[in-house]
Amino acid sequence: MSELKFKGIVAYPITPFHPVKGGIDVEMLSRSIEKLIDSGVHAIAPLGSTGESAYLSDDEWDHAAEASIKQVANRVPVVVGISDLTTRNAIRRARFAEAQRADAVMVLPISYWKLSEEEIFEHYAAIGEAIGIPIMVYNNPATSGVDMSPLLISRLVRDIDAVTMVKESTGDIQRMHKLHQLSDGQIAFYNGSNPLALEAFVAGAVGWCTAAPNLIPELNIGLYDAVAAGQLDRARDLFYRQLPVLEFILKGGLPSTIKAGLQLDGLDVGAPRAPLAPLSIESRDTLSKLLSQARR
Amino acid sequence: MSELKFKGIVAYPITPFHPVKGGIDVEMLSRSIEKLIDSGVHAIAPLGSTGESAYLSDDEWDHAAEASIKQVANRVPVVVGISDLTTRNAIRRARFAEAQRADAVMVLPISYWKLSEEEIFEHYAAIGEAIGIPIMVYNNPATSGVDMSPLLISRLVRDIDAVTMVKESTGDIQRMHKLHQLSDGQIAFYNGSNPLALEAFVAGAVGWCTAAPNLIPELNIGLYDAVAAGQLDRARDLFYRQLPVLEFILKGGLPSTIKAGLQLDGLDVGAPRAPLAPLSIESRDTLSKLLSQARR
Amino acid sequence: MSELKFKGIVAYPITPFHPVKGGIDVEMLSRSIEKLIDSGVHAIAPLGSTGESAYLSDDEWDHAAEASIKQVANRVPVVVGISDLTTRNAIRRARFAEAQRADAVMVLPISYWKLSEEEIFEHYAAIGEAIGIPIMVYNNPATSGVDMSPLLISRLVRDIDAVTMVKESTGDIQRMHKLHQLSDGQIAFYNGSNPLALEAFVAGAVGWCTAAPNLIPELNIGLYDAVAAGQLDRARDLFYRQLPVLEFILKGGLPSTIKAGLQLDGLDVGAPRAPLAPLSIESRDTLSKLLSQARR
Amino acid sequence: MSELKFKGIVAYPITPFHPVKGGIDVEMLSRSIEKLIDSGVHAIAPLGSTGESAYLSDDEWDHAAEASIKQVANRVPVVVGISDLTTRNAIRRARFAEAQRADAVMVLPISYWKLSEEEIFEHYAAIGEAIGIPIMVYNNPATSGVDMSPLLISRLVRDIDAVTMVKESTGDIQRMHKLHQLSDGQIAFYNGSNPLALEAFVAGAVGWCTAAPNLIPELNIGLYDAVAAGQLDRARDLFYRQLPVLEFILKGGLPSTIKAGLQLDGLDVGAPRAPLAPLSIESRDTLSKLLSQARR
Repeated sequence: MSELKFKGIVAYPITPFHPVKGGIDVEMLSRSIEKLIDSGVHAIAPLGSTGESAYLSDDEWDHAAEASIKQVANRVPVVVGISDLTTRNAIRRARFAEAQRADAVMVLPISYWKLSEEEIFEHYAAIGEAIGIPIMVYNNPATSGVDMSPLLISRLVRDIDAVTMVKESTGDIQRMHKLHQLSDGQIAFYNGSNPLALEAFVAGAVGWCTAAPNLIPELNIGLYDAVAAGQLDRARDLFYRQLPVLEFILKGGLPSTIKAGLQLDGLDVGAPRAPLAPLSIESRDTLSKLLSQARR
Repeated sequence: MSELKFKGIVAYPITPFHPVKGGIDVEMLSRSIEKLIDSGVHAIAPLGSTGESAYLSDDEWDHAAEASIKQVANRVPVVVGISDLTTRNAIRRARFAEAQRADAVMVLPISYWKLSEEEIFEHYAAIGEAIGIPIMVYNNPATSGVDMSPLLISRLVRDIDAVTMVKESTGDIQRMHKLHQLSDGQIAFYNGSNPLALEAFVAGAVGWCTAAPNLIPELNIGLYDAVAAGQLDRARDLFYRQLPVLEFILKGGLPSTIKAGLQLDGLDVGAPRAPLAPLSIESRDTLSKLLSQARR
Repeated sequence: MSELKFKGIVAYPITPFHPVKGGIDVEMLSRSIEKLIDSGVHAIAPLGSTGESAYLSDDEWDHAAEASIKQVANRVPVVVGISDLTTRNAIRRARFAEAQRADAVMVLPISYWKLSEEEIFEHYAAIGEAIGIPIMVYNNPATSGVDMSPLLISRLVRDIDAVTMVKESTGDIQRMHKLHQLSDGQIAFYNGSNPLALEAFVAGAVGWCTAAPNLIPELNIGLYDAVAAGQLDRARDLFYRQLPVLEFILKGGLPSTIKAGLQLDGLDVGAPRAPLAPLSIESRDTLSKLLSQARR
Repeated sequence: MSELKFKGIVAYPITPFHPVKGGIDVEMLSRSIEKLIDSGVHAIAPLGSTGESAYLSDDEWDHAAEASIKQVANRVPVVVGISDLTTRNAIRRARFAEAQRADAVMVLPISYWKLSEEEIFEHYAAIGEAIGIPIMVYNNPATSGVDMSPLLISRLVRDIDAVTMVKESTGDIQRMHKLHQLSDGQIAFYNGSNPLALEAFVAGAVGWCTAAPNLIPELNIGLYDAVAAGQLDRARDLFYRQLPVLEFILKGGLPSTIKAGLQLDGLDVGAPRAPLAPLSIESRDTLSKLLSQARR
């Protein structure tokens, strides 16, 4: 199955906006993706939460998806975030991503009105039927407003062929235990909660979906490698070293903090889209200090 | 101030979709608005939560806004829901509503990434500067993912001229107390939580923003009149009579339940847009029974 | 049924400790009860939350129960809080209260380990079988750690003869709606959440269980009278006038704030028992100011 | 410092009640403690949550404390739970435990009225001043109703000499990260949440406080040993093997489930004290099956 393509560090690029024209800044997008690939991450996930996908028009979304996939150019696998409030537009995006040769799509059941379990199931089933590439189910109630129980998620995996991967971002390690238990260890689950990076790998996660490699890729990849090598003391040390950065970027909002961090590193990727605001000067100084401490 | 235009029962129309073409079904939209006006409601609020505003494309939204305002034709005041994830599109919609001669706009700070209080303030301030009609601030964390404290709301009212009304939908009557206290009783607040209909009026709400008048307008208007006349026993009786319907439509999701109820009443307004699903047959039967009991 | 004895304002005395000997200060207890009766409250509820019942030894509890009932001397009905972690000691206290001629007992299912609904039911049933006076079920998850659903409460009322009254203190007015609905308006429910004083009466509460009459009895009784007379504007005015005091005493902890308030009024009832601390000087000044404003 | 005494598996005995006389059944208590020591646990913690400490009279508590310490007879360290609602009785119990030669005391800030941070601090400080043995701070909001933030806990450790150990039972691994960060890895923290057994050790916990060794000591000790040896795959396997039992005993309430499990193993320790109920037959069958699967 295609899910074996994805393991290790799955990195989220930001989506830069052109300072004058306002649309996608393809040059900066390409450079930030290139930076990620150079750093050695194992996969790229454009148009996720970090990529401000929710704030793009459909045209912008298409533009960014196409440019991102082209830039990666098959050097690592690509999973594209295609989430949308309506099923019909989620399908449109999923088909677009497949046509552009994405390796998989990631789907968060964004809500305005709370969705029933049946409505969520039908949403995933409809997308699954419309495409020939795998789906990574993404659970993140803090941004989507929908919390999918491990039981529902395991049903999605079991009953919808296209669903082969799960990204869990609730920040509760016990959800991952439950996914393991409900599938006898067969569900390929990914950690989407940065502060659980160490424990999720220990609990059996096959990958870590994170925006952190934009700023501290060596530490992220180093943690993965240490756990894989069974070097627990080294893993714990690497984890606590990067934890302050992981907590800061999560708390400050990934688009704002990652864009600020890239600018600190010399890549001028601009501001997030309003109402999201750029980091304050004080917060940027804090980030700068935390990065220095982690990279020491 | 323009806010005095709005008091009593502020009714939410649904947005019907054309069964064949898929876009806005203007004829059905007009008929459902006409039904509301006939019933005697005091104001109309198109493109709110009930109106599936979040699930429309921009073209559809424009179409529905224009048609709704035209249909009301100044017989009662109109407040149009213009909420959008980005500030720039919220402004575009607000200007469109003003150009179509809406009396006010309603703004919910929809989020994907959690917004800071400053980001929320700037969102409202930017919309306020762009238009010449009043803003009703709308707090509904269950759908928007953003919970604005009474303190923040009172700051919006105080510091942004255009903000003159507040709709509170958390379901916590104590929020209304706090709005009263923070403004010495000066903030015009509206109740957006159906199960608090009685208590909110008693606590001083000037209006009740509700989709219930699509189905039980006499009971809604009757409750308002009874409280206004100081007939507490009558108000309590009317309230408990309609409460099962109010709870049912809230729990089942307003677009699905109101559309089902209108169909039960002979107005074929179709289904909500996927992933929202129409009511199941069992739920429709329950609704039918609850409506009969309330209308007895 | 005996429950008709209780309506209107059910007042909670504090339990004063002797400054030297450390046990119950019976003289001060008597004076504080006398003050309540003089003020015109409709019933007295010793050894509730306000009475620091949870912090007393069994001997102290017996002493306070006996002295309180004697002091009231049948001038108004008395409901004694007999809550304890174990069923056997709750029964012992209930029997003691009955032997002392209490009119009813109030029972909160205090927990350390979360109780199942069956365990809660059996707890109430065992107490009910042991005594011949009515039980007021008391739901207050914030102090007891147990939240009884309206469904469970209505089952207690229906299936245990002794249970004839319910005190709801969750602060959620919708719980009272549900009790009304589940019993066709037949359950005698009391409001135990001070900030809901106005709305609970409007929703049908027969009484308000509160420690506030230790400090502002005229306002508490006035609110009850205004609602009873259908004077809604007057009720609302009285409510908002006393609300800051009601919020302050709740937030600061009733034993600490009520004792401080009584001292401000010249009744030196001492400090609460450690770990509960007396009010700080700043908080006492705030309370003094809030009392002046409410009593103006 | 004395805290080095405690590491690895800290086991909680139950408190058996005499079937006829009703008080502490010392013989059964001794046998259940002996069983724990035989199994190889590293320390014993009588009169914790599992030991129904909250449901004992003072005489019973003293009796159980004395008998437990005597039975252990210095073969492993003993930490005695001395929690009580009042500071004065907590001190009395702490002194009693010290006089009986306990190695440390464990203190949970049980509440009825919510305690402020100052009240909690003073509670610990007063106990600390009264004794000469170390205190293990115990945070378990689910049973105590008080949630101590990592910041408050680290302040207790820093400012009260006697406080040298922390037991965290919220079930949130991020609390342990924070304790690590706030003390540069210097706070000795223990995991009190069974489902976090694996991850807590990985995050740096020095011990696991658990009632599970009453039933599956080899699996508990094996997990600790595997992590200590850096055998991550083996640790994960052992963890998932025992997790269903860990979840079951937590969800069913430790006194009820552990007593039922001991009876299944042939040690007739009787029922928990009402209102706590013994396991139903169905639940006992489930436990029996889960134990068989884990021990396979």
